[in-house]
Amino acid sequence: MPVSRSDWFDAKYSDDTHLRIRVVERLFKTQSNFQKIEVLDSIDFGRVLLLDDIINVTERDEFIYHEMMSHVPLFSHPEPRRVLVVGGGDGGVVREVVKHQPVHDVMLVEIDADVVDVCRSFFPQVSCALSDSRVSIHHQDAADFIKKMQQDSLDVIIIDSTDPGGASEKLFGPAFYEDCFKALTSEGVLTAQSESPFFDADIMLSLYEIARKVFPVVRFYIAFMPSYVSGIWSFLYCSKQTDPLSGFQRARYEQSRLDTRYYSAEIHAASFTLPPFIKQQLPF
Amino acid sequence: MPVSRSDWFDAKYSDDTHLRIRVVERLFKTQSNFQKIEVLDSIDFGRVLLLDDIINVTERDEFIYHEMMSHVPLFSHPEPRRVLVVGGGDGGVVREVVKHQPVHDVMLVEIDADVVDVCRSFFPQVSCALSDSRVSIHHQDAADFIKKMQQDSLDVIIIDSTDPGGASEKLFGPAFYEDCFKALTSEGVLTAQSESPFFDADIMLSLYEIARKVFPVVRFYIAFMPSYVSGIWSFLYCSKQTDPLSGFQRARYEQSRLDTRYYSAEIHAASFTLPPFIKQQLPF
Repeated sequence: MPVSRSDWFDAKYSDDTHLRIRVVERLFKTQSNFQKIEVLDSIDFGRVLLLDDIINVTERDEFIYHEMMSHVPLFSHPEPRRVLVVGGGDGGVVREVVKHQPVHDVMLVEIDADVVDVCRSFFPQVSCALSDSRVSIHHQDAADFIKKMQQDSLDVIIIDSTDPGGASEKLFGPAFYEDCFKALTSEGVLTAQSESPFFDADIMLSLYEIARKVFPVVRFYIAFMPSYVSGIWSFLYCSKQTDPLSGFQRARYEQSRLDTRYYSAEIHAASFTLPPFIKQQLPF
Repeated sequence: MPVSRSDWFDAKYSDDTHLRIRVVERLFKTQSNFQKIEVLDSIDFGRVLLLDDIINVTERDEFIYHEMMSHVPLFSHPEPRRVLVVGGGDGGVVREVVKHQPVHDVMLVEIDADVVDVCRSFFPQVSCALSDSRVSIHHQDAADFIKKMQQDSLDVIIIDSTDPGGASEKLFGPAFYEDCFKALTSEGVLTAQSESPFFDADIMLSLYEIARKVFPVVRFYIAFMPSYVSGIWSFLYCSKQTDPLSGFQRARYEQSRLDTRYYSAEIHAASFTLPPFIKQQLPF
């Protein structure tokens, strides 16, 4: 099929800046109970998952986000066995989590069943581990789910939420962080996507203020993410005791020999190095 | 003046991906002997300098590029006194270079006098050091200029060129790198902007192949650059002997107490940590 030269999708970085990508084909569109879900095929980024018009996953660069969300906390924990993934219905985080040998139980709490179904159909390389025997999928509100978790029962929590607002709003609030703290073991680690330090520093700041009232260790790390706002993405790291640098599990990392394309032991350390302009926006 | 809601500028990342920014006002436009020069005012990025429709400088993020082009080589040299800046007619690199106390001679070789004039008028915070007594401006072809330089006469060369093509084509070729090598002292360091590792890895590879035939030490470093293609930018580092990490001049860095917003001692080191997907594209 010849490519239409005139079909573009504008991903809003802000009201006044867009990432404009040429669309080869509009593959799918539905309105779920929670959001608009669309799949496009683009020339530069391959297939793109849009949730309420925001780029969530692209085939071209999803590896960066999913590797950094997963391997940083899992290699900061001495033996991550039970992992909770909040959101992340595309399965990209789960795909990386199950690469860790100690993991034997991964709970994916994705409120929107349609996201999982769409990604199973259109993003097989992203959703491939959702059928792994260690993985259970729960279509529930994650804030309710975590409230009911047994204390000290989780090793790692990964919050792969959409931007604040709508169904994900609670995931950016203090009660949710308190419940996560309770559910984590004493060596527990939590990471959360925390938006662009260039366009959304206010969200980073708000998350930082909430997290440091709950967790003894709170840090940010960053990664390049070409299809996300500004190309810089930040991640919140919280733990009860483990520093992500001194606590890095080098022996297990070297044994694992992961086939990662963005993450490495060196990137693990370098990603916590924040440029002064980001630090100046935060009350460190 | 009310903002027109319908004036947008599309910066091409590729034929199929644009960064689309809302324009407040189109301030200036001319056709010089070498290129089309335009100045826009935008909401998210402030004033923007376009050369042949490509974003060259934005008020919002120019600090990242100019700090990383300048401080990485200058703090990798024990005593940078004579510095050559190729291109860079906006003055941003020169502004950072003259912050280094040992520097007493900065030659700016910018082929297009109109770029300098436009930036003096529209980007006073970027061009502010062009009138510094240590700075001389030469409107010549940089390839010819470097050929006539005395051997062993320069401590640092910074190649702040436009993308390959047109007037800058020679700056991406082997003869130019050989002439730079000759002009540098035995402790000499060279850096060059080397495009996006995400969209233009072929240019990085070509520069690497050229540089390693000439310089004993060849490395790449990277920085976030929201207004440039993909948000990731790469820089080539070459030297006759100095490793940029073990050769880092910590004492002088600490004495300098620079007011940088992206660069720091930690960022200097971290920026040489390349994700596997970039290394895999290069024959390291």
